[in-house]
Amino acid sequence: MKACAEDKLLHALLRFVPISKNQPLGPGDDCAAIKCGKPGTLILLKTDCIAEDIHFLRSHDPAKVGWKALCRPLSDIAAMGGSPAEALITFFSPPDIDPSYWKKFYRGLGRAARQFGVTIAGGEMSRQKSGIAVSVMLTGHIDAKHLLTRSGGEPGDLLFVTGQLGGSIAGHHLNFTPRLKEGQWLAKNIHPSAMMDISDGLGSDLPRLARASGCGFEVHRESIPRRKGADVHGALSDGEDYELLVSIPPKKASLLQKKWNAAFPETRLTQIGALTPPQPAPPDWPGGWDHFKEPPKTNRRRQRKGSQS
Amino acid sequence: MKACAEDKLLHALLRFVPISKNQPLGPGDDCAAIKCGKPGTLILLKTDCIAEDIHFLRSHDPAKVGWKALCRPLSDIAAMGGSPAEALITFFSPPDIDPSYWKKFYRGLGRAARQFGVTIAGGEMSRQKSGIAVSVMLTGHIDAKHLLTRSGGEPGDLLFVTGQLGGSIAGHHLNFTPRLKEGQWLAKNIHPSAMMDISDGLGSDLPRLARASGCGFEVHRESIPRRKGADVHGALSDGEDYELLVSIPPKKASLLQKKWNAAFPETRLTQIGALTPPQPAPPDWPGGWDHFKEPPKTNRRRQRKGSQS
Repeated sequence: MKACAEDKLLHALLRFVPISKNQPLGPGDDCAAIKCGKPGTLILLKTDCIAEDIHFLRSHDPAKVGWKALCRPLSDIAAMGGSPAEALITFFSPPDIDPSYWKKFYRGLGRAARQFGVTIAGGEMSRQKSGIAVSVMLTGHIDAKHLLTRSGGEPGDLLFVTGQLGGSIAGHHLNFTPRLKEGQWLAKNIHPSAMMDISDGLGSDLPRLARASGCGFEVHRESIPRRKGADVHGALSDGEDYELLVSIPPKKASLLQKKWNAAFPETRLTQIGALTPPQPAPPDWPGGWDHFKEPPKTNRRRQRKGSQS
Repeated sequence: MKACAEDKLLHALLRFVPISKNQPLGPGDDCAAIKCGKPGTLILLKTDCIAEDIHFLRSHDPAKVGWKALCRPLSDIAAMGGSPAEALITFFSPPDIDPSYWKKFYRGLGRAARQFGVTIAGGEMSRQKSGIAVSVMLTGHIDAKHLLTRSGGEPGDLLFVTGQLGGSIAGHHLNFTPRLKEGQWLAKNIHPSAMMDISDGLGSDLPRLARASGCGFEVHRESIPRRKGADVHGALSDGEDYELLVSIPPKKASLLQKKWNAAFPETRLTQIGALTPPQPAPPDWPGGWDHFKEPPKTNRRRQRKGSQS
């Protein structure tokens, strides 16, 4: 299965740096998981970022942008089944942004921090010549026995997604609730074979989970739950869903659906397909969002300006 | 003593977010120090960043920029007396940068990681519309009894700096060696009353240490060790020195100088002044680098473009 350009670049870059031996997972999962002094507990580490005109616009409410900045890495902590702890905030501020922007941004980020039990441990600020950019580093923790990764799936495991996919740009991407409760509940009560969050679109993220698990996949596209206004292609490609993608051994599936409906009556959990033995993705499988996708040669100039299409 | 604009903005922003109760230091030191499961050990957390045209130029060797990106937060770990552990790298890449830039950057960053015992635990990449920016998050650890902060200085304590100050722009800022060995040695052998790294210039950073310690300061400006080509003003204001600023009770001073010269025969440690009871900074005390300094009204346009003067 072909890796996207972003994954290929990451793979190339990791050849130049020493990789943690203290990390049971290796690079490439939603979070890094590091052994700490306390037996049976792992520390989760995650960094995520947002950039103006890529993840948000100058015209968006800065408080919502602050909410999003923290909730994105929270979604990755959720994907491991973990609990968040400390955040460090780095922001790059262009000369045409007033400090009042950052006060509104921190107000929104602070609201998310209080809601999800995160405290702010540090940060850094810098000017940059143009455009707002923010990086958030987040720590978390998890009992080692509950840790969920991308790589434990087996052929035949059933694939589920929480919530609905696609059409996030209409508003969901600025006010979503990271699936922390759901992730922790799944880790403790079901222990799926693999789990990750869907941030670049199912089109990119499902192949990542399948590849990490050494599997292929098949998906019943019409069964993918879609957000209002989204078609099947959008549900695969739009990205910024911040939902969980879960693989479950078939024998656990009926128990999962029953228990889930009791625990989360307002949140859908939908079976969309299954993992298979290794096989290529369908020829018409669309990719999701890829920051380093090679532009098509016929329209190189427009694509190189960073448009999403 | 008046805080600089950057410190004031930070103070304003921290009102909007929950602050860690798990952190013995509170915000505002070189690193955050978090209790972990292992009694007597603290985890250090630091985030730092570099932005094009502020901390480096496009024309600089990307490998040196990668070296600098990791060595900056390493200097903060050094300032606590700590040992570094895991790094997470976030980079923002503009459309006119080729992936080969990042390979060279990671080569330089990897060289620093191997030299100083850091492993790479994760990262994130994003497009942005213009300009290269990088944020590095670093973990470290330290025996709680060796932790050095900015806030333990007392009136009468003598002030020392390692190495030489000023004129970093000629090259030091891209190839400096973070003072990890020196910081760890000081923490274990001398336990200074306060320590921090000098990154924004002694003109900004000494008032920060003095303020955190509830002290004033006096400095014999001619005694400040200067890098080649730097005058006294430059030694106070240029920034990017990545040296250590240390306060020591007078009774430890002669022991310090003797032991230091045996341990680090090639690195100067120079007494530059002393902490005093609280008092205003001298009226002609220059500030260092401040990302959010209010521009003078007569020349607003040039200053708002982020120039350093």
